[in-house]
Amino acid sequence: MVVDVAIQTGPLDLPDDLPPGAGAVVRFEGRVRPEEKEAIIEALDYEAYLPMAQRQMEKIVRDLGHAHRCLRARVRHRVGRVPVGETAILVEVCAAHRAEAFALATAFMDRVKQEVPIWKSAAAQQQ
Amino acid sequence: MVVDVAIQTGPLDLPDDLPPGAGAVVRFEGRVRPEEKEAIIEALDYEAYLPMAQRQMEKIVRDLGHAHRCLRARVRHRVGRVPVGETAILVEVCAAHRAEAFALATAFMDRVKQEVPIWKSAAAQQQ
Repeated sequence: MVVDVAIQTGPLDLPDDLPPGAGAVVRFEGRVRPEEKEAIIEALDYEAYLPMAQRQMEKIVRDLGHAHRCLRARVRHRVGRVPVGETAILVEVCAAHRAEAFALATAFMDRVKQEVPIWKSAAAQQQ
Repeated sequence: MVVDVAIQTGPLDLPDDLPPGAGAVVRFEGRVRPEEKEAIIEALDYEAYLPMAQRQMEKIVRDLGHAHRCLRARVRHRVGRVPVGETAILVEVCAAHRAEAFALATAFMDRVKQEVPIWKSAAAQQQ
């Protein structure tokens, strides 16, 4: 399985190519919502403990690839200020069939929140 | 929940807008694989029994919306000839949180195969 993980500032995007034989492409975007802990916010600030966060995300993807046979998994996590409505994390999984792709994507999202040293805080309101 | 379902010829695409409050966007693409029933193919031909196929897909989405609270679900199903590598079905579900969006998208794909009168056949090989 091809594993391609990056942590970056600025808007997230992925090129539109596919591995040969992909019959299922599952894409998840985690977007910043306008409410956080019942307060109205304009943005979230994401900080990561690098390079451990990168290594840990790669490890999770590879672990999950043993249980769920997929062709490729790409992950992009944004750090720095992420305005409401923009994407903080982008996960794309390609597989021959959909069950494996959905399984890897959902399991990854469950684990990333628990195991990866990336944390968020509400950005200071602009006056 | 906003429900937007269409059956169409030609490549599938969705505009990049989001409903307010969406924290999770799940997108599934079902692509035509180069093998079908152990034969190498160049394309699949999809036929639909219209307008029943459209109504049935809308009904499935609305049914699932009762169990999984989502903000919007958009479905595009292609009919006619779909070359290998191109998308036959595109499903996008937006919700406040990811669990509901993944649940609706996966349940929809399970049901669409069983309950919607759309069928496929390998396109004749070009010599």
